[in-house]
Amino acid sequence: MAAATVAGNRKAAVLGGGVIGGGWVARFLLMGWDVSVFDPDPEAPRKIAAVLDNAKRSLPGLYEHRLPDQGTLSIAATLEEAVREAEWIAECVPERLDIKQKVYAQIQGACDTKAIIASSTSGFKPSELQAGASRPEQILVAHPFNPVYLIPLVELVGVEQTVLRAREVLEGLGMFPLHVRKEIDAHIADRFLEAVWREGLWLIKDGIATTQEIDDAIRYGFGLRWAQMGLFETYRVAGGEAGMAHFMAQFGPALKWPWTKLMDVPDLTDELVDTIASQSDAQSGHHSIRELERIRDDNLVSMMRGLKIQNWGAGELLNNVDKTLSKLSRRDTAGLIKTIERVIPIDWTDYNGHMNDSRYAQVFSDAADAVMQIIGADAAYIDAGQSYFTVDTRVQYLDECHAGDEIIVSSKVVNGEGKKLELTHQMHHLDGRLLSTAEQLLIHVDLTTRKSSLPSEVVASKLAAIANSHQQL
Amino acid sequence: MAAATVAGNRKAAVLGGGVIGGGWVARFLLMGWDVSVFDPDPEAPRKIAAVLDNAKRSLPGLYEHRLPDQGTLSIAATLEEAVREAEWIAECVPERLDIKQKVYAQIQGACDTKAIIASSTSGFKPSELQAGASRPEQILVAHPFNPVYLIPLVELVGVEQTVLRAREVLEGLGMFPLHVRKEIDAHIADRFLEAVWREGLWLIKDGIATTQEIDDAIRYGFGLRWAQMGLFETYRVAGGEAGMAHFMAQFGPALKWPWTKLMDVPDLTDELVDTIASQSDAQSGHHSIRELERIRDDNLVSMMRGLKIQNWGAGELLNNVDKTLSKLSRRDTAGLIKTIERVIPIDWTDYNGHMNDSRYAQVFSDAADAVMQIIGADAAYIDAGQSYFTVDTRVQYLDECHAGDEIIVSSKVVNGEGKKLELTHQMHHLDGRLLSTAEQLLIHVDLTTRKSSLPSEVVASKLAAIANSHQQL
Repeated sequence: MAAATVAGNRKAAVLGGGVIGGGWVARFLLMGWDVSVFDPDPEAPRKIAAVLDNAKRSLPGLYEHRLPDQGTLSIAATLEEAVREAEWIAECVPERLDIKQKVYAQIQGACDTKAIIASSTSGFKPSELQAGASRPEQILVAHPFNPVYLIPLVELVGVEQTVLRAREVLEGLGMFPLHVRKEIDAHIADRFLEAVWREGLWLIKDGIATTQEIDDAIRYGFGLRWAQMGLFETYRVAGGEAGMAHFMAQFGPALKWPWTKLMDVPDLTDELVDTIASQSDAQSGHHSIRELERIRDDNLVSMMRGLKIQNWGAGELLNNVDKTLSKLSRRDTAGLIKTIERVIPIDWTDYNGHMNDSRYAQVFSDAADAVMQIIGADAAYIDAGQSYFTVDTRVQYLDECHAGDEIIVSSKVVNGEGKKLELTHQMHHLDGRLLSTAEQLLIHVDLTTRKSSLPSEVVASKLAAIANSHQQL
Repeated sequence: MAAATVAGNRKAAVLGGGVIGGGWVARFLLMGWDVSVFDPDPEAPRKIAAVLDNAKRSLPGLYEHRLPDQGTLSIAATLEEAVREAEWIAECVPERLDIKQKVYAQIQGACDTKAIIASSTSGFKPSELQAGASRPEQILVAHPFNPVYLIPLVELVGVEQTVLRAREVLEGLGMFPLHVRKEIDAHIADRFLEAVWREGLWLIKDGIATTQEIDDAIRYGFGLRWAQMGLFETYRVAGGEAGMAHFMAQFGPALKWPWTKLMDVPDLTDELVDTIASQSDAQSGHHSIRELERIRDDNLVSMMRGLKIQNWGAGELLNNVDKTLSKLSRRDTAGLIKTIERVIPIDWTDYNGHMNDSRYAQVFSDAADAVMQIIGADAAYIDAGQSYFTVDTRVQYLDECHAGDEIIVSSKVVNGEGKKLELTHQMHHLDGRLLSTAEQLLIHVDLTTRKSSLPSEVVASKLAAIANSHQQL
């Protein structure tokens, strides 16, 4: 895998090719850096390739534009070769202080004096890492989170000047560098992870809950809140217009007694309440509570609908409800098929709340799927190797609609003979306005050969019956 | 607001019309139940209306089908009137045991003996709530999470028979009932919320981090993991193919020392490790680690792209990177405009990884936006009150493409005279295959009158120059 560095590419070195090291490798490569890895483990190249494989199938699609050309990956024979001329040196060796300090001495003997030596440690403080180093200011903590190629957070702890330079690099990788201003064991995020892990161990040991029940309590509940607002902004919203001090005054005493049965808490002195309230004002005070509620709700809807596409967690739950709803709403109207009856979701609209034009096409695509269901070209039919593919769609946009509006699509089979299925659709607003019309041509396809073919007799006869009744209209 | 119950609708009573009570009201109403509320606070109807307003703009769009017709909301003059004939009685009164017990006595004097009396308490155990009740088995804990109309989790604690009946009701509301099998102060989820809140208070008190920094450490980091997998499944993936026992053997001792500086943990005895490992196998063992990694990554990508639409948190970060990427990739090719150069994201594909046909339309919609940018009909132009609206789009589907494929769209201005803008687009795979073509007609619009109008002179002249050069091709 050794290869010359492309002129002009920046170079990173990664020491240790496990899950975290591999994640750093993937981030740097996909953002156009050259990467040199040193790991004495002969399995390291295989492990790194597996992480890079995952990263390549997920990271580039996060963006609406192509990423820079991928950099060059090389496996170095020695640590010195890896770090030479590298701007960034990611240290991902085992969590033992003596090992790390020895590695820093070796790095500093070979690297550029301006290079950033960034430890991925989840526990050690910079002062511990720097002890005995020839250029201590060069070493900082840059603590990432698995999977490193997708999760944005990196905790930065170290000398301010080095932190500022590190921040520029990490932002260029699409990450979120968080400057931890005072060093502390386990930095910030892992304090919370440890608190939750500890609580989880007690719940399992005491037989209160299983791992599954604990994970469900998290992912169907506060996990969704925390993925977008965190802890304090969430509680600010809960506290209402009166603000954070009011929230703490109202809920503090009521919540205090179950806490204190569990473990010590700092006293909610006036000083601590004032500190939290003023920090919360600085953080969120530019939004009213009503605005924050709607931001939170829009985020939750968008995330849960994202999970719906993956049929996972809260999204799987939504799909299950949809199955019961579709039974309720499917019915004929005026001879045509009522294929769609739904509300425009928040994630289909622009910042003015208008439905994006591409979502009109999605509605008509869903309408064609509904017709396929009705003629028996359903999931079982597709699993058995046959389907209809859309080959041509024309959409006319007649009027606007907004998030929250209810729409109804009626669909007509214009032609269902042979391999062809020609449909027309009308999209109405619940208020009666005609919003859009569409014409679609679908062709029946054998999914093994990917070539056009005739539908099954059952599908053909259902289709003929509907086409016949629609021709009368 | 008092109104007769629609024949056939199920009836719920909600006692207490604050944020939580209002959330229950909204869930029941939007899922087709009639709801009667009792709250002596004269402000309650206004508060409930505000929550219902938020719920109506967010909840119905979660689904691809229309919800049942909304039920009828009535404000009862007395508690007795509210609970009469109700199947479900949501108790949302203040968190004081004496108040709650008095309310239960009053409810049980008036309600159906089969009704479920469900307390929203976040702290009390069912045995405490039931003490002294005439029919204790009727009372259970059904602890929801704010916003109740969107977050699925409800913790159920009580007599098994009542829990089973409650579960059916909550699933019908689209919620995720979690049966907490042993009663405990603060149930399950709030044990974690309390642990994190306590840790957050210490970090602020000790001047380590602000509320903003803590929230950022959560929402850019583990919050994204927890919204879809929770704690144990996330760590199972981190542990690799060797499983959960291996993860604990490997990371347990290393993680133990920062923990024990912070607070007590249960001993990681062989028995506890075995319990966790076997529970984790039961939970996740039907997926290989490689499968779980990809499920996790697909979920993360889909959620972060959901947040991207809202320009919030991890999604705002992605949009910021896009701004730098678009500068890199926008360039002319063969005289036409290269409008799109991107990778197909995971959330645009079906379960076989093929790009959905509606996303072809989205690509061409984005291509039209890119042309608008280039001719000066950009965000500032739109803010100043003018834009182009798409009125007609025709898409021809020629070949398939998959998640991870890179596509390029070249766009041609066919006509740019007067109010009209006619475009054609070609979508190619990076491997050279022509995937799709499109024709679009856009009309220039005055955003104040929403009527067609002539573009500005600057836009018109840029457009004329491009149209002229494209006519030569």
